[in-house]
Amino acid sequence: MSASPYKQLEQEFKRLHAFRGALSLLRWDAAVMMPRGSADVRAEQLAALETEHHALLTAPRITRLLDRAQANTQGLEDWQVANLREMRRQRDHAIATPVTLVSRLTKAASRAESRWLEARAEGGRFETFAPYLEEVVHLVRDKATLLGQALNLAPYDALVDEFSPGITTLDIDAMFKALSRRLPSLIREALLAQETRPLLPLTGKFPAGKQRALVTEVMKAVGFPFERGRLDESEHPFTEGSPGDIRITTRFDANDVFTGLLGALHETGHAMYDLGLPQDWREQPVGRDRGMALEESQSLLIEMMVCRSRAFVRYVQPLLAKHFGVSGPEWELENLYAHLTRVQRGLIRVDADELTYPLHIMLRYELEKQLLSGELAVRELPEAWNAGMEQRLGIRPDNDAEGCLQDIHWAVGSFGYFPSYALGAVIAAQLFESMRSELEGLDEQLAVGEFAGLFGWLRTHVHGLGAKVPVQELLKTATGRPLSAISFLRYVEAKYLESTASSAAA
Amino acid sequence: MSASPYKQLEQEFKRLHAFRGALSLLRWDAAVMMPRGSADVRAEQLAALETEHHALLTAPRITRLLDRAQANTQGLEDWQVANLREMRRQRDHAIATPVTLVSRLTKAASRAESRWLEARAEGGRFETFAPYLEEVVHLVRDKATLLGQALNLAPYDALVDEFSPGITTLDIDAMFKALSRRLPSLIREALLAQETRPLLPLTGKFPAGKQRALVTEVMKAVGFPFERGRLDESEHPFTEGSPGDIRITTRFDANDVFTGLLGALHETGHAMYDLGLPQDWREQPVGRDRGMALEESQSLLIEMMVCRSRAFVRYVQPLLAKHFGVSGPEWELENLYAHLTRVQRGLIRVDADELTYPLHIMLRYELEKQLLSGELAVRELPEAWNAGMEQRLGIRPDNDAEGCLQDIHWAVGSFGYFPSYALGAVIAAQLFESMRSELEGLDEQLAVGEFAGLFGWLRTHVHGLGAKVPVQELLKTATGRPLSAISFLRYVEAKYLESTASSAAA
Repeated sequence: MSASPYKQLEQEFKRLHAFRGALSLLRWDAAVMMPRGSADVRAEQLAALETEHHALLTAPRITRLLDRAQANTQGLEDWQVANLREMRRQRDHAIATPVTLVSRLTKAASRAESRWLEARAEGGRFETFAPYLEEVVHLVRDKATLLGQALNLAPYDALVDEFSPGITTLDIDAMFKALSRRLPSLIREALLAQETRPLLPLTGKFPAGKQRALVTEVMKAVGFPFERGRLDESEHPFTEGSPGDIRITTRFDANDVFTGLLGALHETGHAMYDLGLPQDWREQPVGRDRGMALEESQSLLIEMMVCRSRAFVRYVQPLLAKHFGVSGPEWELENLYAHLTRVQRGLIRVDADELTYPLHIMLRYELEKQLLSGELAVRELPEAWNAGMEQRLGIRPDNDAEGCLQDIHWAVGSFGYFPSYALGAVIAAQLFESMRSELEGLDEQLAVGEFAGLFGWLRTHVHGLGAKVPVQELLKTATGRPLSAISFLRYVEAKYLESTASSAAA
Repeated sequence: MSASPYKQLEQEFKRLHAFRGALSLLRWDAAVMMPRGSADVRAEQLAALETEHHALLTAPRITRLLDRAQANTQGLEDWQVANLREMRRQRDHAIATPVTLVSRLTKAASRAESRWLEARAEGGRFETFAPYLEEVVHLVRDKATLLGQALNLAPYDALVDEFSPGITTLDIDAMFKALSRRLPSLIREALLAQETRPLLPLTGKFPAGKQRALVTEVMKAVGFPFERGRLDESEHPFTEGSPGDIRITTRFDANDVFTGLLGALHETGHAMYDLGLPQDWREQPVGRDRGMALEESQSLLIEMMVCRSRAFVRYVQPLLAKHFGVSGPEWELENLYAHLTRVQRGLIRVDADELTYPLHIMLRYELEKQLLSGELAVRELPEAWNAGMEQRLGIRPDNDAEGCLQDIHWAVGSFGYFPSYALGAVIAAQLFESMRSELEGLDEQLAVGEFAGLFGWLRTHVHGLGAKVPVQELLKTATGRPLSAISFLRYVEAKYLESTASSAAA
């Protein structure tokens, strides 16, 4: 007797999972290990594997098996029915875009990325990059239209659905409306409150080797399994690999004691999510993460809510003394905490604090929708960007390298991705609020480097569900509410407007 | 107008080349970078890619295209006709082994490799490894039988043909017969002659970092392109990657000044072969190396004939002083040369000198044939190994780590590979003899670290031919003779039985 259609699909998707793991490893190697001159060789390998992955996923056999399996789901467990839904989802996304369009977009993105790097290096010469971005926008627009038709979604929603399934423009608009009602005044108040607190500079040299030892010790405490993962260095921190072989990177700055640590812990948040995905479904679509918004919620929860807390500073302060031999008033708890929670109206998204970060995302969200709809021409982007920065943050970039050229996303065709960052922050706050109300003594645990309680909660309510339920349902079950900016606003208000008195007493 | 069958095949094999490059990178990572606990994940990835590579290579479409292209080769250049022959060869080998067997073997080999590493690390606990090796032997036996049937070869010959096409058991037996007629007495004579020469020990600590700097400098002189390659460390030196992204490894021993250097230069010999393969055919079957016997000839020619020569010692002696700050009588030319040409009846193949090395291979050749035929059970291997060592070299391992667990080959299913090492030594001597007779002033060049002349000759006579002609034809063209042990015996006799007088004068 041959295997059931469902079981045959499990085999097919197990193979696709292995392909994606191989692709991820090739990308990790390209960023961390590969000799500089070998990019052409790697490009051929990635293209060959991606083409084959696409061919396997969109083969008529898969469609036939899906039709047969979905026609009769009797005898399947809940998670298997969800798995079928996720299989179908992957296949629908893959088949909606013709191979020729995918290939044209890949090539256009590759050209645009080179020009973006050049334009950025030259201090921001947007006009040399513009024609290449125009080509990418044109192709992404075609892709969004086709994807939207196939998925019965508006074009931009179809792009968002690729990264954060189950989230729509309506959800994003509601979130940004709530945030923009309160954040601008909150930033002003936080900056005023901040002025009254002293800030001693954390000077010194912090060699990469010592930073690595510190980061490794903290990552071990957090629970990162070094027997199934690695920490390396790269230009920008990232997470690659598979749940059984996680590769994270960070960037060490010898003049900054926190950059490398926080970068690594942000990525550790991603890694712990991936590692906590349901073991038994690991190689199946339903065993994957529930999209980029939830991924970002897990990294931001660790980096922002956990690591930029007094409890965590209590844990890490003696480790700074141990690894770097530092001491003195600037290395006291309150001064370290003040550094980790400093608010600043800055131009660069990746350097932004929790309060100003969502404003950076709102700007990008509006501009990318306008670019795709044609409302905004690519050549008008720098002026629209600068005006938007001035309106939202009251600062104006001196050049496009600090403005609309700072992110790689649009150059490589990643439209619909930016909202994930703001969604991630809001979801993280919502989860963190519920977690705190349920876990007694969480701060005391974090203050001694105990993270088991925290990750236990996350495994139950987030990690262990994989892609079984939509984000909104997951949130309702975990927090009693659908996506809402309330928790985030409560969280930042409490954190950034605390009275100086209570801060000294804490 | 659609592309010709031949051109379509070129496209298909270009893709297969990219797949093999990806597979090689995954293997490199597994040995050098991968966390210890992630072997299961990697095994799935390797199996998925190998299976797909196999499916693509054996697809009916390839057979049809081959038939059509080979039916009419008018208009094709010589190398393209040879390319068709090599395409067919690859396909014939692949189609002889069913996908399920390939996949089972890959997984079994991956498991056995992990257990081999563990068993070896524990000082040689063969019994924990034995069941895994048994599984591998069983599957390789099935493979050899099927391959033999398809290629009309005896099972073991079929395995040899995979690694060293055009070489048969008859060639190997003839070579070993000639070697075993002379080597045992030659070893005795060399050991006697050696006794008359003083040998001052090369003591000291040689930190890995300094060794790496020395090795890098020498590799650069040799011509290894670090912008398209890496040097790393692993348990056992090896070469992986693609001609445009070569990854070699070595092993540094802080108590031994030469192990790391010679390991790296052995692998550099492989790398230079791969890098010298014809650029225009790089992604095609005819652009590949001409099998493992020729590969080994290139690594041994560098490690043994070049690096263990007085000329090379003249070049490297000042570098030792520079990198390790060593001086004194033991670091003089003749004493260094005496160390590099020391003959010793030792247990470890990779540490063996040129004279005893073929005896190590003969033992493995006989044992692996017996394992495959069933004449020898896996559990009897340690005893058979130890007895064989005693008979051939007069010494007996204390444990299996120094005995039958010392090599990775059998664990990963590489049966029929070992003869390549002895074939390589013999071919290297044959090529080297012709090269020396044609290149004036070679020793003077090597003595100042100039390798261009040497590699120029090798590119013309070996590297630049790729897989265009069979090994025997290549040898006839390059040296005027087919494979023969005469040059090797002439070479070792001159080198190891030189009179003390001539040695002092040289």
